[in-house]
Amino acid sequence: MTSTRQHRFDEAAAALGHRFDGEIQIGGHYVSTLRHGDTIHVSGQIPRVGSTVVITGRVGADVTLAEAQHAARICTMRALALLARSLGSLDEVQQVLRVGVFTQSAPDFTQQSEVADAASDLLHDILGEAGSHTRTSVGVYQLPKNAAVELDLIAAVR
Amino acid sequence: MTSTRQHRFDEAAAALGHRFDGEIQIGGHYVSTLRHGDTIHVSGQIPRVGSTVVITGRVGADVTLAEAQHAARICTMRALALLARSLGSLDEVQQVLRVGVFTQSAPDFTQQSEVADAASDLLHDILGEAGSHTRTSVGVYQLPKNAAVELDLIAAVR
Amino acid sequence: MTSTRQHRFDEAAAALGHRFDGEIQIGGHYVSTLRHGDTIHVSGQIPRVGSTVVITGRVGADVTLAEAQHAARICTMRALALLARSLGSLDEVQQVLRVGVFTQSAPDFTQQSEVADAASDLLHDILGEAGSHTRTSVGVYQLPKNAAVELDLIAAVR
Repeated sequence: MTSTRQHRFDEAAAALGHRFDGEIQIGGHYVSTLRHGDTIHVSGQIPRVGSTVVITGRVGADVTLAEAQHAARICTMRALALLARSLGSLDEVQQVLRVGVFTQSAPDFTQQSEVADAASDLLHDILGEAGSHTRTSVGVYQLPKNAAVELDLIAAVR
Repeated sequence: MTSTRQHRFDEAAAALGHRFDGEIQIGGHYVSTLRHGDTIHVSGQIPRVGSTVVITGRVGADVTLAEAQHAARICTMRALALLARSLGSLDEVQQVLRVGVFTQSAPDFTQQSEVADAASDLLHDILGEAGSHTRTSVGVYQLPKNAAVELDLIAAVR
Repeated sequence: MTSTRQHRFDEAAAALGHRFDGEIQIGGHYVSTLRHGDTIHVSGQIPRVGSTVVITGRVGADVTLAEAQHAARICTMRALALLARSLGSLDEVQQVLRVGVFTQSAPDFTQQSEVADAASDLLHDILGEAGSHTRTSVGVYQLPKNAAVELDLIAAVR
């Protein structure tokens, strides 16, 4: 039986027009998720689908706010997919504790919070109250592979 | 009876010339503070007083070091006000564990540590040894609402 | 008797051509490491040896990828030296949980992950599986003292 959260995740994936059930690859001597006691850390996610970073460039110049929000949603879905894979189910997430949202910004782009809102809203849509979290949003100068947005998080586990 | 810490907080607020007893508003599906076990996370704070971000712009160009330090103090006071509100009293803070200080920087501004020192000193002034913490200071390209400084923290709770 | 980890640390220090046994100074009201329960936080480290920041400038412009990777290794060695000093031995590190790598980037430099790989690989070389970690790598606009790279981490302690 598909849980309510997994069902909402699948609906969100369909709405975004992307699949998140393939391999989520990372290279080198680090890991995507790491559990310690009752918390789990998720590495910084960029808007990569398969092997392609689908939204690249500087938000406020090459990338619109709406596109950056789309990028933030893809990062969020990747983080959730990794949590589901690592924990067995999204139902094991007790509470998202902290989310970091890094937006590759044009010099005068100041809507980093609005970019991050797309991630926050999606976490809430899928996880309900367990998706509420503290958040830090900043505008950075560049990101790996010219990604428009990067997102990391820490969650408490049941 | 006002605790020693709250008294020092009130003195610092008076010295800064700002009040921190109004509503501290945030929008969207995230929260200002979140407690999990014996730690509490505080969302990234910008130097907003009421509904106005009082120090905006790029430090080293539009904003002086002294102004940026003032901004860092306001961010710190907001974080402390949120902790007091969430925990009932600043006396419940056992130890500040980690502080992140993000300074919107001019290309050649390299005194991010000096900006962060204003926050570190204020935490120590108000909380005593419980205000000692680890710290990461970086220079970012932009911040929400063109804020000059943003600060987040994690603390241990009694 | 020197532990295996300490021995690997000493070999890595020799390979880098730097010593990490002097005072690691920080100023102000913050600390280099802070332990809480079974986790320890390490403050952001820049590639300082003694009192000199040895690799400064913008990666992709003034600083090559190879030089930035060298800087990331120095930051990592400093973090490990601080852990060893605080805990008594590197053998007390149960698991590195999370590493943040901040690279002072040129506008079109997008190899922040490759910079961070140097840190990740070194943590693994010295600590083995305990050196695996989650990671967030971003490109920032400036860093304290014009450092090319800054690195912070959280680890679980035995």
